[in-house]
Amino acid sequence: MKRRDFIKSAGVGVIATSAMAISPQVVAAKAEFKWKMVTTWPKNFPVLGTNANYLAKTIEDMSGGRIRIKVYGANEFVPAFEAFDAVSRGTAQMGHGAAYYWKGKSEATQFFAAIPFGMTAQEVNGWLYHGGGMPLWEELYDRFNLIPTAIGNSGVQMAGWFRKDINSVDDLKGLKMRIPGLGGEVLKRAGGTPVSLPGGEIFTSLQSGAIDATEWVGPYNDMAFGLYKAAKNYYYPGWHEPGSTLETFINKDAFAKLPADLQAIVKHACKDANMDMISEFTAKNNIALDTLVNKHGVNLKPLPDDVLIKLHALSNEVVQEIVDRDAFSQKVYASYSGFQKQVMRWSDVSEYAFMRARNL
Amino acid sequence: MKRRDFIKSAGVGVIATSAMAISPQVVAAKAEFKWKMVTTWPKNFPVLGTNANYLAKTIEDMSGGRIRIKVYGANEFVPAFEAFDAVSRGTAQMGHGAAYYWKGKSEATQFFAAIPFGMTAQEVNGWLYHGGGMPLWEELYDRFNLIPTAIGNSGVQMAGWFRKDINSVDDLKGLKMRIPGLGGEVLKRAGGTPVSLPGGEIFTSLQSGAIDATEWVGPYNDMAFGLYKAAKNYYYPGWHEPGSTLETFINKDAFAKLPADLQAIVKHACKDANMDMISEFTAKNNIALDTLVNKHGVNLKPLPDDVLIKLHALSNEVVQEIVDRDAFSQKVYASYSGFQKQVMRWSDVSEYAFMRARNL
Repeated sequence: MKRRDFIKSAGVGVIATSAMAISPQVVAAKAEFKWKMVTTWPKNFPVLGTNANYLAKTIEDMSGGRIRIKVYGANEFVPAFEAFDAVSRGTAQMGHGAAYYWKGKSEATQFFAAIPFGMTAQEVNGWLYHGGGMPLWEELYDRFNLIPTAIGNSGVQMAGWFRKDINSVDDLKGLKMRIPGLGGEVLKRAGGTPVSLPGGEIFTSLQSGAIDATEWVGPYNDMAFGLYKAAKNYYYPGWHEPGSTLETFINKDAFAKLPADLQAIVKHACKDANMDMISEFTAKNNIALDTLVNKHGVNLKPLPDDVLIKLHALSNEVVQEIVDRDAFSQKVYASYSGFQKQVMRWSDVSEYAFMRARNL
Repeated sequence: MKRRDFIKSAGVGVIATSAMAISPQVVAAKAEFKWKMVTTWPKNFPVLGTNANYLAKTIEDMSGGRIRIKVYGANEFVPAFEAFDAVSRGTAQMGHGAAYYWKGKSEATQFFAAIPFGMTAQEVNGWLYHGGGMPLWEELYDRFNLIPTAIGNSGVQMAGWFRKDINSVDDLKGLKMRIPGLGGEVLKRAGGTPVSLPGGEIFTSLQSGAIDATEWVGPYNDMAFGLYKAAKNYYYPGWHEPGSTLETFINKDAFAKLPADLQAIVKHACKDANMDMISEFTAKNNIALDTLVNKHGVNLKPLPDDVLIKLHALSNEVVQEIVDRDAFSQKVYASYSGFQKQVMRWSDVSEYAFMRARNL
C-alpha cells in the first residue's frame, strides 16, 4: 500500500462509522485545546482511517473534552503528501500515516514502518517500547519538530494478487506488478517491472492485463477493493511488509503547551490504538480470508521457497545500500537488526514452534 | 505458573522499579478517588507485578492525580487467593491477576486466561476486542459485581525444564512434573504425575530429583528463578499456555462512581498496559533466552512431534469435559473455538508463513 493510492481510492471500501460520535459529557465540557489531525488516508478508510477516528475519540473521552481533535481525510485540509510538513510547521497539531511515506525526508524513516523480511508486529513493538526503537524514532523526528509514536500495525500483509502462477524465480522475470517502495526495488532486481499506479486504476489494470499482479494490504482491505474479481491467485506471505507500523506525529510546540495530564493522555491513547489496530486486523482479516476462499473461489497459494530465498537475498542488498549511504539509517539499522537477530530465535521457539505444533 | 507459587516465591527475581514515582504535577493535584489495587503477585514481581505498577501510574498520570491507586503485592492487604472476593465486595476497587485463578468461581474463567493448544496473544486480543470475547467476559464477571479486562499477555510460554530427555510419549509415563491446572490434568492423562509445589520449593525439588521437571513462565522469569542450575534441558513450545491473558477486575460500584472521563482513562489504560506487557516479554525473553543458551549452556529442545500430538488430543478431551459440564463454558467455548478455527487459517498464511519464509 502507498499513500498516493489511498488518496486516489477515496470512496472505495469506505464504511460508515459512528466512532466520532461525542458523548453528552464530552460535549458539555469546554474544549481548552482544539487540534487538527491530518491523515494520509481517505476519511473513514477501513481500519487505517477509522483508527484515526478511534484515536481522536479516545483522547477526547479521556480528557473529558478538554482536547477536541478534528480528523481530516487526505486532501480535506492539506494534501496527504503534505501532512508531515503541515504538522511540522504547526498548521495541524497531529498527523496519522506511516513513516515510510517520508523517506524523501530521511531514508531512515522506513525502519519505523516496514522492512522486507524484517520484524513482525509483536517483535517490532518489543523493539519500539522495550528494545531501544522509540528513542531513535524520537531523535529522527525531532529534526522536524515532531514527536512520533506507533498507533497501529497491519500485521503480516499478503504477497498480492497474480493473474498467473508463480512457480519459480523465472516467473518473476518480466512480471509487471504494482508494488511500491522497497518491495518494488526488490522485484526490479529479480527481473520484474514494478509499476506505480494510483489506487483507482489498480483494479482495471489488473483486469485488463495491463499489469500481471498487484499487492495491496491484506484480506480485509483487499476484499473491499474487489481485487479477487480481477485475479484469482492470492499469494502469501507478505515478505515485503511483514509488520507495518502505522504512526502518529505530533507538533512539538503544540504538545509542549498541553498540561502534563493531557500529554499523558495523548501518549497513552496512541499505545491503546496500537493494540486496537492489530486486534482489528486480526479479527477482520481472518473473516475476509474465509470469505475470499470459500465464497469467491480464490486460490490461496504460498510463494515457492526458491522465490522467497531469492527475494530475501535481494532485500538484504537493498536494505544494505540504504544503510551504507545514510548515517542515521546505519544507526537505526544496527539497533533494528540486532534486535531482530536475537528476537527471531525467541519467536522460533515460541510463536512459530507453537503454531507449528498446533497444526500437527 | 500459578498464583500460589508466586506468593510463596516473593523476593525471588524481584527488581527495583521506579515506576510508581509520581511526577510533581500529579502530587500537586487533589486526589478525588483513592483506590486500592490488590494483586496476585509479589510486589514488583518482574513484568507481571511491575505491570500493575505501570497501570496504576498510567491512570494517575492521565487523571492528573484525580485517581490515586495504591498497589498491594500478594498478601500485603488481602491474601492473593482472596483478591477476587475482596474486589467483588468492594474492600479493594481493583485487582490484577489471571482469570484461571478463579476457576473455583466458574470454570469458564479459564477461557479468558489460557487454554492448552489455544490461541496466541495476537489471536486472543483479536477475539477479545473485535471477535466477541470481551462481552462474554463482562457477562461472566458481572455475576460477581466486577468489570474485567485484559492488561497483558505472556505470549507463548516454555514447556519447561526437564532433568532427562523427552524422546517419545513413553517418556511422559511416570514423569513427576510440577505443572498446575489444565496442563497438569493433561500430563496426568498421558501417564505422568502432576505435582503441586509452592514456588519456593520448586528449585530444590528439581535439583534433588524429587521432581523430574517443572514449567514456570518463559526465559526471563525462569532465568531469574535460577531453574537452569537445577536442570539443563529446556523444552519448547509452551503448549499448555500459548498466550496467557493477564487481567484486571474492577468493582462495579467503584467504577460507576467515576465521572465519564475517569472511566475512559481506566479502561484505555488497561489496553495500553496490554500492549506494554507483551512488548516487554518479547524484548526480555529474547535477551534471557540468549543468555541461557550462550552463557549458561542450557540445552534448548523441541518436544517431539508425537508427544505434541498426544498432548493436543488429551487437551481436547480435557477442554471438552469442561464444556460438557458447564453451560457458560459451552457458550464461551463456542465463541473462542469458532474464532480460533478461523484465525488459525489466517495466522498460518501470515505470521507462521512469514516466520518460516524468513528462516529459509
